[in-house]
Amino acid sequence: MTSTQHPSPPAFTSADYRGRMDRVVRSAVEAGLAGVAVTPGPDLVWLTGYRPTAITERLTMLVLRPGQEPTLLVPVLERPDAESAEGASALTIMDWADGTDPYPVAAALLEQGHFGISDSAWALHLLGLQRQLPSTDYEPLTECLPMMRAVKDGNELARLAAAGAAADAAYGEIIGMPFAGRRETDVAADLAGLLRRFGHEQVDFTVVGSGPNGANPHHEAGSRVIERGDAVVLDFGGLMDGYGSDTTRTVCVGEPTPEIRKVHDVVRQAQQAAFEAVRPGVSCQEIDRVARAVITRAGFGEQFIHRTGHGIGVTTHEPPYMVEGEGQPLVPGMCFSIEPGIYLAGRFGVRIEDIVAVTDDGGQRLNNTDHGLAIVE
Amino acid sequence: MTSTQHPSPPAFTSADYRGRMDRVVRSAVEAGLAGVAVTPGPDLVWLTGYRPTAITERLTMLVLRPGQEPTLLVPVLERPDAESAEGASALTIMDWADGTDPYPVAAALLEQGHFGISDSAWALHLLGLQRQLPSTDYEPLTECLPMMRAVKDGNELARLAAAGAAADAAYGEIIGMPFAGRRETDVAADLAGLLRRFGHEQVDFTVVGSGPNGANPHHEAGSRVIERGDAVVLDFGGLMDGYGSDTTRTVCVGEPTPEIRKVHDVVRQAQQAAFEAVRPGVSCQEIDRVARAVITRAGFGEQFIHRTGHGIGVTTHEPPYMVEGEGQPLVPGMCFSIEPGIYLAGRFGVRIEDIVAVTDDGGQRLNNTDHGLAIVE
Repeated sequence: MTSTQHPSPPAFTSADYRGRMDRVVRSAVEAGLAGVAVTPGPDLVWLTGYRPTAITERLTMLVLRPGQEPTLLVPVLERPDAESAEGASALTIMDWADGTDPYPVAAALLEQGHFGISDSAWALHLLGLQRQLPSTDYEPLTECLPMMRAVKDGNELARLAAAGAAADAAYGEIIGMPFAGRRETDVAADLAGLLRRFGHEQVDFTVVGSGPNGANPHHEAGSRVIERGDAVVLDFGGLMDGYGSDTTRTVCVGEPTPEIRKVHDVVRQAQQAAFEAVRPGVSCQEIDRVARAVITRAGFGEQFIHRTGHGIGVTTHEPPYMVEGEGQPLVPGMCFSIEPGIYLAGRFGVRIEDIVAVTDDGGQRLNNTDHGLAIVE
Repeated sequence: MTSTQHPSPPAFTSADYRGRMDRVVRSAVEAGLAGVAVTPGPDLVWLTGYRPTAITERLTMLVLRPGQEPTLLVPVLERPDAESAEGASALTIMDWADGTDPYPVAAALLEQGHFGISDSAWALHLLGLQRQLPSTDYEPLTECLPMMRAVKDGNELARLAAAGAAADAAYGEIIGMPFAGRRETDVAADLAGLLRRFGHEQVDFTVVGSGPNGANPHHEAGSRVIERGDAVVLDFGGLMDGYGSDTTRTVCVGEPTPEIRKVHDVVRQAQQAAFEAVRPGVSCQEIDRVARAVITRAGFGEQFIHRTGHGIGVTTHEPPYMVEGEGQPLVPGMCFSIEPGIYLAGRFGVRIEDIVAVTDDGGQRLNNTDHGLAIVE
């Protein structure tokens, strides 16, 4: 018995959005910025709840500066849509009409200084601002404020936990469905349907890597027919109530070989060790090192060819990254994946991934399905 | 009897892509540019056939300069995908690896001068280039080379004609389906299904504007239940074999009032007059003026609240625009919509739209369904 219903989370309040904007302004000042300019995308959704129906050539930009009301400049056609955004009451909304030049208006909000700007802001818009304000300069937001969205509040954590539980439920169903004799794309379609059935409004990826395809971590799902004896990497996720899920389990079609069992066990131990290392103050790179050490000790270091994890929130991949060179200390409320893997080229791959939230004294898994090697038919 | 099959068009050849790139370099030189830098999006698809599966923070950029081989810089992870693009053999492909800095590599391809850059290039990438090459400057491609993709070759025209015929077939079916008592969104879903059934791989919009909703040209489709007596604007399109369709007809649910008939007739005459004005050398704004004159003479000038048309190709909205102030002369091979409308606020709207290709001595419609006011049930 499964359900297509899930309770809606409490809406974010004007105070939630105001709190986020205030925190960003404080971080910007600490980072030596005069302010930030945010164009449509995940940062704007997180800061204002506003998600334009299309990202177009028409300038839409939120400006946050100390001592200035948060101001969202929108094309006049989009004003009703912007005004209905969840965080609109925390904003001053200004508009500009087709046939007028939006850059002087935007420039008046920015004035002089060094600003953070959305990575994905269009060149068209940045060049328009640069023409208006030749002595103002800009830095991509992921460079100057990489941790802007990294620490989640209680409502965000609840949504991430619910998305994780839905992904777990999808996994619980998929392992009861047939694998042998079906194409990877068929299983991927089932996974997508299950994510939606358990409440996801958006499916971002459904990787089904069977046999040798599992050894390519960039493989999605193809026309290969799954065979008995295959190890199959299942890595899937998307958005539910605006927050991401992302989990991986590796299953075996029928009885696994001793080698598959052994590799799976090494990955399982690496994932567990990295999870146990999570606590406030530990650096992101330390999480990567702990997972990597387990795999290297087992002789598979060269076959663990990607970073150990990535943050998750209003997107399924974002900072912080669990990777060598990332010295950022973990902070309670950060959420990220721990997903070590071993890839034996041309043969098979194994990856195990859970989303983990940093708590005051450790970590809490948001995925809770069994880590044992599931046998499927 | 309808068919879900349509013959695949001939593939574009390496010579097709090479020809496009050569033409762009010549146009760039004429426009005083040192070259162009193209990031993922419609321009890159048109120039190379390459459409990355996701547009990400990793730099992907095509550089075209006189006297230099066309060069596509891609993340090494994406190299196999780029190499399988239809136009890959007309390109030199270079790659860069995660953990290395792509901007010095990109900068070496650009060097000094004034470059056109994709409007939607990420600020992250433009700032990276600006740091490397402080004395090189950039202009958005739609400003310096607005007509880059405007003139279509024979294969492109054949694809646009096939997409238009598929949209016509969808219209032919929808007017036989029930309207009264159904929601706009239900009819919109039917239209989307029909476009796919007749061969579209992507549906971009299915506007169903019934009664007063038809008087808002930005309305898409909503929960309003369609009533007998409503005029209903149907404006729909998408991509088939990579090229766009976009057609509008206004129908009436049951017998129209004399006023609906009259307004419809004015719009029909405006559309016809603008179509008859199409020939090489006539300016885009002249097409707008001809349509507008008919509507103004009939007393509805204030109710024709948008431009007369837009180009179409690998996207459904692109230059050239049929709008006052656009002096660009029509050239054989240009394809665009002619879509005058009259909008009576709070009551109803009427719009009629065909895609038209400029020929050596006039214009050719790519939509050919009847312009009369269809009565639906």
